[in-house]
Amino acid sequence: MIQLQIRTSERQSFEDITQQVQQLVNASGVQEGFCHLFCPHTTAGLTINENWDPTVKHDMGLVLDGLIPQRQDFRHGEGNSPAHVKSSLVGASQMLFVSGGRLVLGSWQGIYLAEFDGPRTREVLVKIVEG
Amino acid sequence: MIQLQIRTSERQSFEDITQQVQQLVNASGVQEGFCHLFCPHTTAGLTINENWDPTVKHDMGLVLDGLIPQRQDFRHGEGNSPAHVKSSLVGASQMLFVSGGRLVLGSWQGIYLAEFDGPRTREVLVKIVEG
Amino acid sequence: MIQLQIRTSERQSFEDITQQVQQLVNASGVQEGFCHLFCPHTTAGLTINENWDPTVKHDMGLVLDGLIPQRQDFRHGEGNSPAHVKSSLVGASQMLFVSGGRLVLGSWQGIYLAEFDGPRTREVLVKIVEG
Repeated sequence: MIQLQIRTSERQSFEDITQQVQQLVNASGVQEGFCHLFCPHTTAGLTINENWDPTVKHDMGLVLDGLIPQRQDFRHGEGNSPAHVKSSLVGASQMLFVSGGRLVLGSWQGIYLAEFDGPRTREVLVKIVEG
Repeated sequence: MIQLQIRTSERQSFEDITQQVQQLVNASGVQEGFCHLFCPHTTAGLTINENWDPTVKHDMGLVLDGLIPQRQDFRHGEGNSPAHVKSSLVGASQMLFVSGGRLVLGSWQGIYLAEFDGPRTREVLVKIVEG
Repeated sequence: MIQLQIRTSERQSFEDITQQVQQLVNASGVQEGFCHLFCPHTTAGLTINENWDPTVKHDMGLVLDGLIPQRQDFRHGEGNSPAHVKSSLVGASQMLFVSGGRLVLGSWQGIYLAEFDGPRTREVLVKIVEG
């Protein structure tokens, strides 16, 4: 299990970690197998989406903020309830195939750490196995 | 594949199953590997979120109910369409790493069975493998 | 890694691929293990939900369209920002257990390719392993 550290700089952002994960695949020497990612945070998550046009990230943030605003009747005292809900909707883990020593991703796909309560230093745990 | 049974007591609730899953990891003897969970229900799901402050569960339920209320134009006759949609948004499975014989979870993370159409008796299927 | 091709016929639809995936499990000869699915598209996803009553798919589409309509302030020029967000909410991958040579699914569960920006020809990548 390898640990990536990601420094986020805004309240909400989508940090492209595709290259860092590919470097871990390279270092692992695994040619055919699986790459499992896990985010050990309750106000962040991992998602796969377009990383060619950066406006997709912008629009994704706009929708999530619109869907899950602050509410007067939230009980959680830290003020970050929307971030917790976004984390559960996006999810804490991702599984990718590895083939020919490369992450198998569609033409436009990248892997994102989704920050919902930043800025913070976040961790992503990575495990790459043959299979 | 092991089967956990979870009795839920409300229409919507988040049942913390972290300890039960850790006990299965203990019993498996696996020190380094993966714990895969699967929920075989279409109106429930599995999610990972904060299990320290119980108000997070409250706020998560509030948001999901607010986002997905009943609608006049639903066609599904059982009246539980919101539960089906919540199930797809939260997801049917979770993957966790196991290291040193322990589930790898962040400080505040717990594993929840998310009940969206209870009360019912629910199953969670668990498989723990070396890797 | 096997590649399924799915032809979708509408802008948004849920295509039941359960039988096709089960046939791949049959062909693999795996009796006990895992079936991993990955969708290499950023405006589609994979989800597990009821496949007995087709109205569930209808209601799921209604909710997703209601939650994530077009907006004037979207910046992504292709006009399919809602499809990108739906893709991240539903997710790009699914993990299922295989037992006795069969996908382990609840009574009402099926596996769906969720099309959010069709009609298109979509791929689903499948890997079935012992474990």
